[in-house]
Amino acid sequence: MNILDIIEKKEKGENLSKEEIEYVINEFLAGNIKDYQMSAFLTEIDLLGLSEEETINLTDIMLNSGEKIKLDISPIVDKHSTGGVGDKTTIVLAPLVASLGVNVAKMSGRGLGHTGGTIDKLESIEGFHTEMSLEKFENQVKEIGIALVGQMGNLVPADKKIYALRDVTGTVDSIPLIASSIMSKKLASGADSIVIDLKVGNGALVNSLEEAKELGNLMVKIGKMNGKKTACVLTNMDEPLGLAVGNALEVKESIDALNGKGPKDLEDLVIELGGLMVSFGKNISIEEAKTQVRETLYNGKAYEKFKEWVRAQGGNIDKLEIGPNQKEIKSKETGYIQKINALEIGKLARKLGAGRLTKEDIINPKVGIVLNHKVGDYVKEGETLLTVYYDDKIITDEEILESITITKEEVSKPKLIIDIIK
Amino acid sequence: MNILDIIEKKEKGENLSKEEIEYVINEFLAGNIKDYQMSAFLTEIDLLGLSEEETINLTDIMLNSGEKIKLDISPIVDKHSTGGVGDKTTIVLAPLVASLGVNVAKMSGRGLGHTGGTIDKLESIEGFHTEMSLEKFENQVKEIGIALVGQMGNLVPADKKIYALRDVTGTVDSIPLIASSIMSKKLASGADSIVIDLKVGNGALVNSLEEAKELGNLMVKIGKMNGKKTACVLTNMDEPLGLAVGNALEVKESIDALNGKGPKDLEDLVIELGGLMVSFGKNISIEEAKTQVRETLYNGKAYEKFKEWVRAQGGNIDKLEIGPNQKEIKSKETGYIQKINALEIGKLARKLGAGRLTKEDIINPKVGIVLNHKVGDYVKEGETLLTVYYDDKIITDEEILESITITKEEVSKPKLIIDIIK
Repeated sequence: MNILDIIEKKEKGENLSKEEIEYVINEFLAGNIKDYQMSAFLTEIDLLGLSEEETINLTDIMLNSGEKIKLDISPIVDKHSTGGVGDKTTIVLAPLVASLGVNVAKMSGRGLGHTGGTIDKLESIEGFHTEMSLEKFENQVKEIGIALVGQMGNLVPADKKIYALRDVTGTVDSIPLIASSIMSKKLASGADSIVIDLKVGNGALVNSLEEAKELGNLMVKIGKMNGKKTACVLTNMDEPLGLAVGNALEVKESIDALNGKGPKDLEDLVIELGGLMVSFGKNISIEEAKTQVRETLYNGKAYEKFKEWVRAQGGNIDKLEIGPNQKEIKSKETGYIQKINALEIGKLARKLGAGRLTKEDIINPKVGIVLNHKVGDYVKEGETLLTVYYDDKIITDEEILESITITKEEVSKPKLIIDIIK
Repeated sequence: MNILDIIEKKEKGENLSKEEIEYVINEFLAGNIKDYQMSAFLTEIDLLGLSEEETINLTDIMLNSGEKIKLDISPIVDKHSTGGVGDKTTIVLAPLVASLGVNVAKMSGRGLGHTGGTIDKLESIEGFHTEMSLEKFENQVKEIGIALVGQMGNLVPADKKIYALRDVTGTVDSIPLIASSIMSKKLASGADSIVIDLKVGNGALVNSLEEAKELGNLMVKIGKMNGKKTACVLTNMDEPLGLAVGNALEVKESIDALNGKGPKDLEDLVIELGGLMVSFGKNISIEEAKTQVRETLYNGKAYEKFKEWVRAQGGNIDKLEIGPNQKEIKSKETGYIQKINALEIGKLARKLGAGRLTKEDIINPKVGIVLNHKVGDYVKEGETLLTVYYDDKIITDEEILESITITKEEVSKPKLIIDIIK
């Protein structure tokens, strides 16, 4: 076998055998297949696709390229989001389902996006840390039902090396490559059940509904073939999720949501995803699970679990700084909000310091943007549209107003939950 | 502009502007676009193609990436072959057209194929050297109408760097990449007219007639747009050209051809290509040019020019060693030769030492294979099919017999000249 023959075979439209895919991945990891050859292979996959069988094989080979976590705890439910502006659902969901007896043993990443990742957001709580040994991690899950760490162990090294290349060669948006990347990592982290929040729309990994459905079906199929209960929820990401964008601001909003006082779209999403997680973990119907989720949001138990979790990981919830400066941005028109450009809002938050452009950038946890309104709302000229929380960097009123479109005609509220695949 | 946006634009099926292509080539040469990014871009071109306009722009940008040779001599006619097993036409054609007053100022390469390139073949003549200054090169063309050198000047550096990458990423067989590579080099070398011998078939760069026609039309169009008389002859490369394969053996056969005693297919090709070259150079009809070409092959003038050329470049034509050992391979069947696998014959000659597998390999000029027959010939059991000239490495009778197919049914001679595009 050699890489040139395999590239040529794929170019001819033939399907690759499991041995051929294994050869490519293993020789790439060993450094015998060079970056420039792998990027030719990845570009072929991006342009020509992979069959379902090839994708399943690729996932399996990636999964087996490194260590796998195996905890002596059950049930463990994992949740993954493909990422979106203002997405703080993990911070709400993890303590919520843990408070209902479903364990969450989660690995999470830092963000290289417009705003931070879940770890960056949680680190805006003074003292919160996410480095711990596997033993401590396992014990914490056993004791309080919840733990969240950064990278642990040498999980799916093939994905790390391939993803670094995809990022710089325009092959991030390939359905089979996304599916194998997400699922190999989820399968390696040892949960019994997997719930995926697949964002669709402007600023999301996948733009079209058709592609999202293809990806969702593929991931659910891979999960089930590996003996995991798996569901994928397709959710709208044309406007930011909730009202807050920025690390400490999003933790604050999460705390509101954990007390039943969060924005409606965030709460709806938490109930939908939480319902699936609890239904999987406790083997009960979705309806029953959703009822339990709603109760725990309103009876304070989810918030109690959150505080317990923060304490266990060294955080002091009373030390959550925002600002220190704020500026209200007023509407220059009267009408209905037609569009809030999630991608632009994300980029503006990053400009304030809430996100990274390079891995080396340091996030300012205190800054960000909090919307007063969502798409479909009616606003009057002079009314506050949003508040900018800033520190040493500032953005202009014009920049921020450009990301919001107001129209005279009535606008209906967009549908948040587009589809559920399970 | 950035490479990721350009890769994405191409992926969407949009055509790239000249500025975008220029950005890619120049930034790649500057090292700002990395090999793995360029290989993604080249793979896209291989799979999605380029429009005619994009290919013309790419050629122009590559041409302008380095120096261009400008000689104070006219007419100069250049000839290019896409390479085939037993292809010694340049050795015959160059002195032939020069003897008719059409100048040949040719740059040529060493081969990284089954057998050597034209320079390797000529170096089998003791003392023949191809390194000289531009001044000496120009003077020699002025004095005797012919000179042949290896690489000279920094011509088309973009092609050197891109070709090295194509070679190891499975993107050698892309029509627009072949066209821009060949034509940028031909245009940089300063001839007034260009005649291309495009080989089609087993063991050639292009396998299908359809692709060959597309490539031929594209190259002729690019040549004409740059003010050069250009023609492309599509020729069959299913069996080796002529009878000899191997460096000194091919020079010997070239000398026969220059004396009107060469194999018929080689002579036919020389008359066809030579006719086009002389017609372009002297501005006369093809028919008249072909008549002159035939005459000079039979009246000894072409061979006189060849000897003058070899002397001018330091060679001693009496010192042309072959062998030292030879072995005749006999037919095991009676019947018609249906197939002589050019690719396999080439590989076997390389096994004897006639070609290189890596740039560092040293060619043995003395060894090779001389056929007694061509496709369509009738042979009897026990009759000699070919002679193997060998030195320190040997091949088995079985290996060589496998590359020749004999059948009971009559086989018609294949057509050598498939098409002429001008």
